[in-house]
Amino acid sequence: MLFSTLIERKRDGAPLEPGELRVFLDAYMAGELADYQMSAFLMAVFFRGLSDGELSELTRTIIDSGTRLDLGEEGPPAVDKHSTGGVGDKVSLILAPLLAEAGLRVPMMSGRGLGHTGGTLDKLESIPGFQVRVDLDRFRSILDDVGCAMIGQTPEIAPLDGRLYALRDVTGTVPAIPLIASSIVSKKVAEGISSLVLDVKFGDGAFMPDPEDARELAAVMVGLAAAEGLRATALLTAMEAPLGRKVGNALEVAEAVECLQGGGPSDLRELTLDLSAELMPDDVTRDDLASLLDDGSALARFARLIERQGGDPSVTEDAAALPSAPFLRTLEADHGGVVHSMTARAIGLAAVELGAGRRRIEDEVDPAVGFDLHAKPGDRVEKGQPLATIHARTEEAADRASKRLQEAVMVGPIGAAPPLPPLVLGRVEASA
Amino acid sequence: MLFSTLIERKRDGAPLEPGELRVFLDAYMAGELADYQMSAFLMAVFFRGLSDGELSELTRTIIDSGTRLDLGEEGPPAVDKHSTGGVGDKVSLILAPLLAEAGLRVPMMSGRGLGHTGGTLDKLESIPGFQVRVDLDRFRSILDDVGCAMIGQTPEIAPLDGRLYALRDVTGTVPAIPLIASSIVSKKVAEGISSLVLDVKFGDGAFMPDPEDARELAAVMVGLAAAEGLRATALLTAMEAPLGRKVGNALEVAEAVECLQGGGPSDLRELTLDLSAELMPDDVTRDDLASLLDDGSALARFARLIERQGGDPSVTEDAAALPSAPFLRTLEADHGGVVHSMTARAIGLAAVELGAGRRRIEDEVDPAVGFDLHAKPGDRVEKGQPLATIHARTEEAADRASKRLQEAVMVGPIGAAPPLPPLVLGRVEASA
Repeated sequence: MLFSTLIERKRDGAPLEPGELRVFLDAYMAGELADYQMSAFLMAVFFRGLSDGELSELTRTIIDSGTRLDLGEEGPPAVDKHSTGGVGDKVSLILAPLLAEAGLRVPMMSGRGLGHTGGTLDKLESIPGFQVRVDLDRFRSILDDVGCAMIGQTPEIAPLDGRLYALRDVTGTVPAIPLIASSIVSKKVAEGISSLVLDVKFGDGAFMPDPEDARELAAVMVGLAAAEGLRATALLTAMEAPLGRKVGNALEVAEAVECLQGGGPSDLRELTLDLSAELMPDDVTRDDLASLLDDGSALARFARLIERQGGDPSVTEDAAALPSAPFLRTLEADHGGVVHSMTARAIGLAAVELGAGRRRIEDEVDPAVGFDLHAKPGDRVEKGQPLATIHARTEEAADRASKRLQEAVMVGPIGAAPPLPPLVLGRVEASA
Repeated sequence: MLFSTLIERKRDGAPLEPGELRVFLDAYMAGELADYQMSAFLMAVFFRGLSDGELSELTRTIIDSGTRLDLGEEGPPAVDKHSTGGVGDKVSLILAPLLAEAGLRVPMMSGRGLGHTGGTLDKLESIPGFQVRVDLDRFRSILDDVGCAMIGQTPEIAPLDGRLYALRDVTGTVPAIPLIASSIVSKKVAEGISSLVLDVKFGDGAFMPDPEDARELAAVMVGLAAAEGLRATALLTAMEAPLGRKVGNALEVAEAVECLQGGGPSDLRELTLDLSAELMPDDVTRDDLASLLDDGSALARFARLIERQGGDPSVTEDAAALPSAPFLRTLEADHGGVVHSMTARAIGLAAVELGAGRRRIEDEVDPAVGFDLHAKPGDRVEKGQPLATIHARTEEAADRASKRLQEAVMVGPIGAAPPLPPLVLGRVEASA
């Protein structure tokens, strides 16, 4: 095959023959196709898309580039959740022990923060001692013992995805629906799970602000998973304001613990229950799941998980066991009214600037810094009322973050407040 | 500058700020921007194009990446011609000595065959001893002595173009109008000429089959040259059938010599005069130029050029001094009628298969092989009349070429012959 000819055909919108894309991708893994040819191809895919057959072939080839976990026929169904990324999204920390407590197995492989969004691995690492780099044997053993395990991507799973993603990240080819869909679905199929729920976010703080784009991505992923024998559904969820009231790694662990104690902000609790219910058999109700939060059993499961992964389980009893920042600063409302908006993207970027995320790949994440939001869109506030507490490493950082936060929060007249979008806009399932 | 952000903006059709593209390109030359980033950018340019300002900046940066020849204020105007590539196009071999004889200077830098098309350097190298690799000092000296010089691209001229072209060639990013235009115009500006004529081909054997695409390319190049202070015009010329009656390197030199003797096929003579006239002052007529062909003075100039570049000038007196192929095969018409078509692309590819061009970059070119066409579209032929003579290295090659040629030539009913397209469809000049 002449590789440049294949690139030209994709560029011109001509179909690729069955099997051609696999040869092309295998040649890339074998070092016979250069990065500069792959990046040109990926840019052509951004503009031309992939046919259903091409998308399946891409996904299957990514899966076949590594190990496909065999979790065994016996034992409870293995399930997982994937979110397309948001600000304040600590759902995984609650959902994994909750579903394990409900009798399922949750072999969860997560990622790190990207851009203005947080990442589950960074949050877990704010728990003193917690290990997210775990080999597959230990991963299975933790999963067998606890019912859930939470680790980073291992090199055995979908190595082609790792190479493609690193290339996409520096060549402007990240936001292409077929590339996003195949990357996510291939890794989940390779985890060996039987059911998947996707949290596809839209709005200011999502990678796909437009709900229609999010719906398309959801439909592509659900269909692709079904074609690989993985039952999947997706919820389309709003990411206009941060989810919950805390943003920043240790702060989000503390909020997840609150939720696992039966408390926490209602949007976080509701979304966690909605996503969890997607993975349960029909005879288990949302109330059944809620009771596992309210009676503390899911929290106990989380403590066992933390302990098995080398972390300090006392964080589930006392938030003081988590790292804390030396400088706290309160942002107060300079006039009364209603919170009209609190833009998730700006707050996420301000958190990154505080050190909660990375600006360059080699940056260290500061586990302690972030925001505690005391008001959310729709809340009435008086002049002088605290809007947020800033947790910062230095006084200068607190000053900068205070200014950024002020720009991200809009308090306006009571009568003129825009309607709040529903947290869950829709649900997508595979067509029969 | 974050290079991936610049790629993303081009991908999304957002304008680049003045100066940004130069920083991006300079970083590429300095090795700070990777080939895989540049190829993704070039693919985005294929889809999104470049604004006028971006195109100027690209062209200027390519020029500035190397030397700009200073041919001096004194002496006759320096001019050149560039063709976008065709089959049987040996115009340069005639035009350069003709214009030198007419009193101009022609510092011509040419290329090699590409795909199904021939290249001036390959044709010149079929002349025993002819050197096309000449350093800039010797190039100037030959130009001063003979009034013309014909060499390959030197490493001092537009090295960025060389790097970009090599990358485009293997990443499906060759046929993008702004990339083609900037590549051609930058090299011609760097040659230090004051006038340029562009032969922009359309039709079956051209890289841009659609005349409207060819017209757009011509307009972009003429405008770009004008912005760089280079007076340029373009002729849009048909490349449905090969130009002239000979295809193949030594065969084409022999046909150029026929034309320089005042003979040769009329299409070749007319096109050469049309293109040459574009570069002459208004008081020199086409007839004045024709007389320099008819009186043999342009031929004598060609002999001087060949001698100064190390070649055997006797090829201008006797075609037997050129290499010849051991196997000749005649293709005869298997029925009578009119030649309806003779597709240039198929004939060019058949010539490449004979060895007249390269299939891989490392292939050697066979100077002797090719075709002698005894009929052209519009000609009446009787059954059994010779349509072409095949010049081949082996009998097997002759067999294959005979079959290919048969497929490329269509003889049909006399009344049903399609009208012949005009050789020159239009002319493009810079708007005032």
